[in-house]
Amino acid sequence: MVARAGIVVTGTEVLTGRVTDRNGPWLAEELRRRGVDVGQVVVVGDRPEDLRSALELLLARHDLVLTTGGLGPTADDLTAEVVAEVQGRTPRLVPELETEIAEIVERLSAGRGWRRDPEATAAGVRKQAMVPEGASVLAPVGTAPGLVVPPASGTGAPVVVLPGPPPELQGMWQDALADAHVQRALAGREELRQNTVRLWGTPESELAATLRRHDDELVGLEVTTCLRQGELEVVSRYAPAAAPAQEALLAALRADFPDTLFSPEGETVDELVATGLLDRGWTIGTAESCTAGLLAGRLADRPGSSAYLLGGLVTYADHVKHDLLDVPQELLDTVGAVSAEVARAMADGARARLGTDVGVGITGVAGPGGGTPDKPVGLVHLCVTTADRVLPLRVQLGGDRAAVRERTVVVALHLLRELLVS
Amino acid sequence: MVARAGIVVTGTEVLTGRVTDRNGPWLAEELRRRGVDVGQVVVVGDRPEDLRSALELLLARHDLVLTTGGLGPTADDLTAEVVAEVQGRTPRLVPELETEIAEIVERLSAGRGWRRDPEATAAGVRKQAMVPEGASVLAPVGTAPGLVVPPASGTGAPVVVLPGPPPELQGMWQDALADAHVQRALAGREELRQNTVRLWGTPESELAATLRRHDDELVGLEVTTCLRQGELEVVSRYAPAAAPAQEALLAALRADFPDTLFSPEGETVDELVATGLLDRGWTIGTAESCTAGLLAGRLADRPGSSAYLLGGLVTYADHVKHDLLDVPQELLDTVGAVSAEVARAMADGARARLGTDVGVGITGVAGPGGGTPDKPVGLVHLCVTTADRVLPLRVQLGGDRAAVRERTVVVALHLLRELLVS
Repeated sequence: MVARAGIVVTGTEVLTGRVTDRNGPWLAEELRRRGVDVGQVVVVGDRPEDLRSALELLLARHDLVLTTGGLGPTADDLTAEVVAEVQGRTPRLVPELETEIAEIVERLSAGRGWRRDPEATAAGVRKQAMVPEGASVLAPVGTAPGLVVPPASGTGAPVVVLPGPPPELQGMWQDALADAHVQRALAGREELRQNTVRLWGTPESELAATLRRHDDELVGLEVTTCLRQGELEVVSRYAPAAAPAQEALLAALRADFPDTLFSPEGETVDELVATGLLDRGWTIGTAESCTAGLLAGRLADRPGSSAYLLGGLVTYADHVKHDLLDVPQELLDTVGAVSAEVARAMADGARARLGTDVGVGITGVAGPGGGTPDKPVGLVHLCVTTADRVLPLRVQLGGDRAAVRERTVVVALHLLRELLVS
Repeated sequence: MVARAGIVVTGTEVLTGRVTDRNGPWLAEELRRRGVDVGQVVVVGDRPEDLRSALELLLARHDLVLTTGGLGPTADDLTAEVVAEVQGRTPRLVPELETEIAEIVERLSAGRGWRRDPEATAAGVRKQAMVPEGASVLAPVGTAPGLVVPPASGTGAPVVVLPGPPPELQGMWQDALADAHVQRALAGREELRQNTVRLWGTPESELAATLRRHDDELVGLEVTTCLRQGELEVVSRYAPAAAPAQEALLAALRADFPDTLFSPEGETVDELVATGLLDRGWTIGTAESCTAGLLAGRLADRPGSSAYLLGGLVTYADHVKHDLLDVPQELLDTVGAVSAEVARAMADGARARLGTDVGVGITGVAGPGGGTPDKPVGLVHLCVTTADRVLPLRVQLGGDRAAVRERTVVVALHLLRELLVS
């Protein structure tokens, strides 16, 4: 049996989308690695009734419930209070904890040179030192302690109360896992494995047909598919006993999609490009127009990328393509900046100017303006060159300006992968 | 009275954090502009029981419930079916809709050159043409129609069923709002205004002190504050009657933070930089090391940015700083690449090589490796120059490699804003 956990994320700024929640995904991944499935995540603002009903929903359906955020010193931080109430426990002041938090606050304020209102500070400290009777305290990483609150009734799931700032939450996580109530809630769970396969250029409907055809071999796998920036991602989750079914899935995908299955073990295209460059000892330089630096920026995302990325040129204006990349003015005048010829000249120009083994040229119409019947918005010419190879590619992409530019970066990475694996 | 809506986001890939949900925040913002508050957002995977219980939770507590995703042609797309069941409505095949969807699928497949399995396609089309009795159909933007499903009992909230791909959801939104069931659910709601003020360089604690001091003037405002990439965002929401309180808030912020309040009306720093460059008719070029193109890429995010952004140089390797930007080799050898002197030389080099009015130079230690006691990870030198001005800045940033690089881009934009507004 697989244990299930539910997560409540608190915070008006998450609810309204001004801040992207990082704790839910982090906890989901941590739990999954331990064979615990996340069934539902509820985001609530600062209304106590919304938090209460969310907790009730999750407690009814999960072996463990976790909350993030709402542990601060102010009145609208009410997670601990509501959790205590839902679990039927009375909060009590723990004087030693109050002293500990007061010392932390004192130290932090001094270090940061904050002006403080002593009365408000004391009230905040006292609030953070209130612990539901029978709950375990998780030592504070910032100022707020975490809690594990088992139900007073003795049956039902415990609630793990964690702070909102990701470093604090993550710093407290091992203690939370080691707590006896949490251990008990997750006892007897089965390990759950996960495998990700990625394909590039296979439509979802073809993948669906393959999965249907092999349906009876895939018993015990929970397979989800997802199209992301043109990559088709096949994620399967399974108990160890279903490992042969996972093998069957991989064999079926390899047989049906030999050309498009590029990642049998979940490697990202970024990883494959980095490894390919490192294995050959090749350096790379970029020449970007519509993406304007996003490809170079993505190549530099990886620590250690300076081993192969020497630099790049963002040639947004046409005369800059000539000045910085030696794209012949005649080409720009005749076939125009968005053309296979210019993409190639840009790639060659990047190699020459930067002295790299590999050059990438990108030129396209990102929109919303600038499209013509011949060269509509979304048309992008890419070219990857080395001293003895030329890989040109013309794509017509959909979506808005941001989508066209982001997708172009992914297309460029796959063109590089093609160069490096063949 | 403010109407309240709840949102269900479906998708295992969102639940596990592999994909960031864009629909919840978009809908929350759209609804808020219309005076509708979002109380809870629930993320569920593809288990029907999890979806059902989430719907029940939200229906019990909101005037309107919206779902996103799970409308595809495959068996694990079960939103329409579960919503029908929860609302007590039987799904029936609508033949005209089946024909319409089949035509769309035919057209799309032909355009993309997809091979198709006719039987599977027909089954998928039929599934997408099943409509709960008594529900309204929202015309498909992709292949899946949306639905508005009122409760069979006659009392309770309707459920608006929307597709997962953001362009499809957004393209269907006006129709959803115009639906009679939705109109009825939201009738009598009060307009809710929202104002955003942004500050750069004010600590959250000082802002909190100002808010406390003016507490009695701010009655009727719901104020949330949020620190985002170093910018402090103050969002207030209020009914029209509380407009004077909003004025008082703005006056208090202007009085206490004259130097750091840069956006009284919610303008982004990107907008202010773009407007500043356009107003002066200035062009700009970048020279980036640790950010490796992210600043140029961000400047090019805006449609029409080619009016001022001519290009940029990504000089990741030290010798490229010399070759492409004429940074004196002697500087690199003596003070090193991460230094105020090199940042300035890079900015000047970008101006000279690209022929722009403004140059930006960025050089820093993004980590995780490469730090030294003198130049630790997170140290970044920036410089903005014109023919007659030099604005240098040294910052020490926290966080991981990605955080240092992203934050550096924001710091650079504020340095440009400083140049342009002063």
